[in-house]
Amino acid sequence: MTQLAGQAAKNLEAVRSQKPLIHNITNYVVMNTTANALLSMGASPVMAHAVDEVEEMVAFAGALVLNIGTLSDPWVRAMIAAGKRASDLNTPVVLDPVGAGATRLRTRTAKEIVAKVDVTVIRGNASEILALRHADSQTKGVDAIHSVDDAASTAKFMARELGTTLAITGATDLVTDGQRVFRIENGHPLMACVTGTGCMATTIVGAFLAVDNDPVSAAVTALAYFGLAGEVAAKQAQAPGSFMVALLDALYTITPENLRSQAKITME
Amino acid sequence: MTQLAGQAAKNLEAVRSQKPLIHNITNYVVMNTTANALLSMGASPVMAHAVDEVEEMVAFAGALVLNIGTLSDPWVRAMIAAGKRASDLNTPVVLDPVGAGATRLRTRTAKEIVAKVDVTVIRGNASEILALRHADSQTKGVDAIHSVDDAASTAKFMARELGTTLAITGATDLVTDGQRVFRIENGHPLMACVTGTGCMATTIVGAFLAVDNDPVSAAVTALAYFGLAGEVAAKQAQAPGSFMVALLDALYTITPENLRSQAKITME
Amino acid sequence: MTQLAGQAAKNLEAVRSQKPLIHNITNYVVMNTTANALLSMGASPVMAHAVDEVEEMVAFAGALVLNIGTLSDPWVRAMIAAGKRASDLNTPVVLDPVGAGATRLRTRTAKEIVAKVDVTVIRGNASEILALRHADSQTKGVDAIHSVDDAASTAKFMARELGTTLAITGATDLVTDGQRVFRIENGHPLMACVTGTGCMATTIVGAFLAVDNDPVSAAVTALAYFGLAGEVAAKQAQAPGSFMVALLDALYTITPENLRSQAKITME
Repeated sequence: MTQLAGQAAKNLEAVRSQKPLIHNITNYVVMNTTANALLSMGASPVMAHAVDEVEEMVAFAGALVLNIGTLSDPWVRAMIAAGKRASDLNTPVVLDPVGAGATRLRTRTAKEIVAKVDVTVIRGNASEILALRHADSQTKGVDAIHSVDDAASTAKFMARELGTTLAITGATDLVTDGQRVFRIENGHPLMACVTGTGCMATTIVGAFLAVDNDPVSAAVTALAYFGLAGEVAAKQAQAPGSFMVALLDALYTITPENLRSQAKITME
Repeated sequence: MTQLAGQAAKNLEAVRSQKPLIHNITNYVVMNTTANALLSMGASPVMAHAVDEVEEMVAFAGALVLNIGTLSDPWVRAMIAAGKRASDLNTPVVLDPVGAGATRLRTRTAKEIVAKVDVTVIRGNASEILALRHADSQTKGVDAIHSVDDAASTAKFMARELGTTLAITGATDLVTDGQRVFRIENGHPLMACVTGTGCMATTIVGAFLAVDNDPVSAAVTALAYFGLAGEVAAKQAQAPGSFMVALLDALYTITPENLRSQAKITME
Repeated sequence: MTQLAGQAAKNLEAVRSQKPLIHNITNYVVMNTTANALLSMGASPVMAHAVDEVEEMVAFAGALVLNIGTLSDPWVRAMIAAGKRASDLNTPVVLDPVGAGATRLRTRTAKEIVAKVDVTVIRGNASEILALRHADSQTKGVDAIHSVDDAASTAKFMARELGTTLAITGATDLVTDGQRVFRIENGHPLMACVTGTGCMATTIVGAFLAVDNDPVSAAVTALAYFGLAGEVAAKQAQAPGSFMVALLDALYTITPENLRSQAKITME
């Protein structure tokens, strides 16, 4: 049994018994998949983006998920309003800075959310996370990261700089709050062949944050659970269409005991 | 054979032969699923929400479906414009008041639509429907409904108060126009584990309204058909991802004769 | 082996090795399906519609896909801004004029895009394409087209009038630039029973345009590939839900050699 494997089982069990409401302000591409991922795992999704109601809605939620995948002005304003309200209520907030670094609008928006909202966890790939560094940051760019050790030290530096927990996903996932560093080795390459798996990871982190007060262990265990679902799905399906179906099934069928015994988590 | 089972078979056959166009102004989460449900059953979906075109589009439709699941101002204005035009044309309108009661915006919007549009059927769960009662209504709240008989008398009262047919879905579905009350026992618990099944029920009611002039029998038979699809799907699939696939398949494969023999409808 | 079958195999191989980024400004119903179709075939999807970023985003893309399925003003403005920038960069643009002819807004918008953007290929059904003809066009209406030969001569006439390549899909697909005319006989009737197959065809044309400079051969080979995927899927699945899953799988599993041997393309 690896580190935090017992906590992973406990978190999955807690989501299924407490069925926390997860409020998502997310992109059009993955809304359906996100809602289905939450339902399959046992949580309750709600999608609401009107600035007139997000502050009221987030008050019922166990966590708030902000995702800028198909951002536009009114949605960003709603994300910030909901995020501020969540911060006031000590409700955890996960940010998915989709495409940060690709366009100035995305980079600027992601940074604005980080500046205005008390973000609990940021979940992204390495280049999205690196795009969030301060203008005068001493952080190296993606091209300068030549090894796994470089990645870990850069991630720790950035987590301290941003004052948040970072969950950086890829072939190996890495979670750090600037002090502790965990790696998660669960997952399968087919996860990169369907749209929305990154966004699913983010919302699953949200659901685990609703039942686990430690952002690091919530993010680590959520990514182990989702990665394991990818492994289970790949045993059922060898192509992307059927893989997505099997992935949603796996989120439903994986037991806490499966997760305890198959989580691949290491602490540095 | 239960009540209305013959009508259920007739309605399904009519949808498949007439292929009515169903105009949906619905939420982002379920648009794809809604369109696929209509295609699987044999109807023709159209999604159009620009206030510049909805009045023109609804004129081609056999029914209009309004769903406030991810509402915002421009969408609500389009719903009301389309709804008024539908009323003028005697085209049936189904309303799905998603989340009414959860936020003031949703409750107010659902009530505004009911006030301004000649709504033929409202399809929701018990708490959404109860949220629509008048401020000075004598209706009991959800907490005060202790039995199946209480639910039926409350529903009848509210249908008369709102001047419409109510289709209240849950473990047992209930349809009433304030006079007649029908219960539908078809369905399966896995339907609550995938997103959009409520919205699918609503749009299927829309398709049946396009071929059946009696709102009560259209709603009753549509819910029996959809519930039966859930039962058929659950024989193929035991987890949410594959269940949704099987549910869309079942809408396509169920024959009028299957529906006639397996509808579980009772009139009180 | 039929005409262009070798080019079809070459294009599929090129998409898989080059993984071109395809920028989609498309409708809410099919965004997820579109992204998954591109990922399954080996391309990289991006969805971005904010007028503040589309010109920056399209600069990274191998092709731009414009689809007016759920159009509204801000989206149309973004389509035109992105389209103009693509034209400046010589990046190919595919237009899917969903519902042109159904409402004045759709017809006017599709014509405006054709007028303002250097559209490389328009992919639609016969009535959508005919809706784009000039007010004083000599083109016959849909009702006046009585034979396959009529359709071909009308299409050639319109391609010259619009100065673009037309890809008209139906039981038989037809592609013409006003000089050459090709027919593609691949496909399966179940493709009409799931939403978004037309939109998938359009984005697959976009991916092939990113690797093939000849718009006619790109469109012809893309439609043969997608039609073959429908044939392969229909061997796995006989109802719409499972057919869509199998269709995404087929886009992933079809090899260049399969496509070379099974493409059904004829040049007139």
